[in-house]
Amino acid sequence: MPSRTPIARTPIALVGLGPIGRSTLAYALFRPGLEVVAACDPKPDLAGTPLDKFVAGAPASIRVAPSLAEFGRLPKGTVAILCTQSHIPQVAATVEALVRARLPVVASCEELVFPQWRHPEWAAQIDALAREQGVAVLGTGVNPGYVLDLLPAILSGVALRVDALKLERVVDAATRRGPLQQKVGAGKSVEEFRAEAAAGRLGHVGLPESAALLCEVLRFGRPRITEKLEPVVAKAAIETPFVQVAAGRVAGLDHRLVAESPAGRIEITLQMALGAADPHDLIELVGEPPLKLRIEGGTPGDLATVAALLNAAPAMPALKPGLRHVLDGPFPICRARA
Amino acid sequence: MPSRTPIARTPIALVGLGPIGRSTLAYALFRPGLEVVAACDPKPDLAGTPLDKFVAGAPASIRVAPSLAEFGRLPKGTVAILCTQSHIPQVAATVEALVRARLPVVASCEELVFPQWRHPEWAAQIDALAREQGVAVLGTGVNPGYVLDLLPAILSGVALRVDALKLERVVDAATRRGPLQQKVGAGKSVEEFRAEAAAGRLGHVGLPESAALLCEVLRFGRPRITEKLEPVVAKAAIETPFVQVAAGRVAGLDHRLVAESPAGRIEITLQMALGAADPHDLIELVGEPPLKLRIEGGTPGDLATVAALLNAAPAMPALKPGLRHVLDGPFPICRARA
Repeated sequence: MPSRTPIARTPIALVGLGPIGRSTLAYALFRPGLEVVAACDPKPDLAGTPLDKFVAGAPASIRVAPSLAEFGRLPKGTVAILCTQSHIPQVAATVEALVRARLPVVASCEELVFPQWRHPEWAAQIDALAREQGVAVLGTGVNPGYVLDLLPAILSGVALRVDALKLERVVDAATRRGPLQQKVGAGKSVEEFRAEAAAGRLGHVGLPESAALLCEVLRFGRPRITEKLEPVVAKAAIETPFVQVAAGRVAGLDHRLVAESPAGRIEITLQMALGAADPHDLIELVGEPPLKLRIEGGTPGDLATVAALLNAAPAMPALKPGLRHVLDGPFPICRARA
Repeated sequence: MPSRTPIARTPIALVGLGPIGRSTLAYALFRPGLEVVAACDPKPDLAGTPLDKFVAGAPASIRVAPSLAEFGRLPKGTVAILCTQSHIPQVAATVEALVRARLPVVASCEELVFPQWRHPEWAAQIDALAREQGVAVLGTGVNPGYVLDLLPAILSGVALRVDALKLERVVDAATRRGPLQQKVGAGKSVEEFRAEAAAGRLGHVGLPESAALLCEVLRFGRPRITEKLEPVVAKAAIETPFVQVAAGRVAGLDHRLVAESPAGRIEITLQMALGAADPHDLIELVGEPPLKLRIEGGTPGDLATVAALLNAAPAMPALKPGLRHVLDGPFPICRARA
């Protein structure tokens, strides 16, 4: 077996120190192949904070910069890990600034997993800019980024024909972070849920991105996508460290998507609710041969998103410059020494 | 969503017309992106046979060539699909000849999935030759090539740390082709099974290749591999179209492997027996987070091997020249139009 030359540490600049950013910081410390060299968050109460205030053992010599401009000089080969918002308009300026600074960007931004779907013009612009600057930009995570797009595509690798994919993810939101419990509507009345859902303030971001990415890589053709968002109502009172839910109020959401393409169909069901029974991920491939893949208990969203970011980071400098997606990026692999 | 330029048909030269080769021929006919342009098999009774004698609808104008030398002129961009034997010494000369003819090679040869393990010198030679000739060589399939190597590696992509992988594949050999039923020892006495196993004439080829490939891509370090092969004894009489097994005789095999590496451990259990209960593939990742992936019913070996070959073929001409493996080759994806 050929031995590989040891891989130098990848310097990491963290952009965003919310729950996912802090978790990324914590786990980056234990990865021999990574070294956090800078961090940035525009929140006024975070500026100047030494990193060891977030995570014991993080370098106290590094303080949170209030803006990218105040990062100072970064080591050659630094990769930016962006963990801020879910929507392209919220992250566009930051991604552009990082690319102009010639930093490869790997991000947890849900819409960045396949920005071609909702923001095709911006996607084309950032692709051109990233090529020009010679760096790659990649959105990744668990959902979107893995369970409902990458994994079904990989399952198709042992199929001769794919007619449809039926994807299902059931998450017990009680096991997840506070912001996610709020995002699924836990604690609201059914009327509040419906009003906020109608206003686009509730619901999971990323299902159309997963479906459109699948239609792209499977060469199904451009899909027509419809979505439906319903509340899951608590049958009994539920309490978590973050929220109290009385019986009859909302425990979470049931989000369905259908993508109809000229060459195939994709159906997604996402349930995220406090106390959801039998959490799991299920991928059913309708085709030849039919295939059924199940992840027992489901892929744990928060940890696995951090893993996806940290596993991708060392590969970013060698990626082909431009806007990449998880199915033309590096194989997602956790390397013991990277 | 960016539209892709239509992909031209990939010309395919089939090498080997046993069960897998014939099945590959049959399914290649239904893939709009592929076109079988030549076929070769050295068996004297096959030479000169028009392809429609194997599969209705195959081009009668193409006859089986008795040797590669008699392929004649092949269209530019032709990819060779090699479906002959399991061991490198059996396929080495053919792979070399194809590479010298500047044909990319994708093969079902089990040892070619990671020839670095058993045949490191040949692997280095063929890698050098393929680079020199500007073509890629890839071994793929289901086992090895997917269930016990590619899929566990992909599952690690959402893990922060992998301590061990416990892999299990249970196949009801009654649903498989005749040669496989013989390969698992069905119908033999326990004594015959043990004698043939000791002589290396029985057992599945490819478990060490899967384990060594995983140790390579996970950067576990070079493993120490031990294997154990036991018979599965029939409790009642079993009959298939290919074999009759009396109670007390061998229904199949139970093949175990342990790979111990400096940075992690891999355990594989492969049961292939007539009438095996609850066929499935199971990947258990011991690490952070722990993950458990199951394919209900198991990945159907024969069809899925053909799928892996046909899905890889169109990507072969664009692969980096040299000896590739499934985790640095193209993402395994079944494309509706490719």
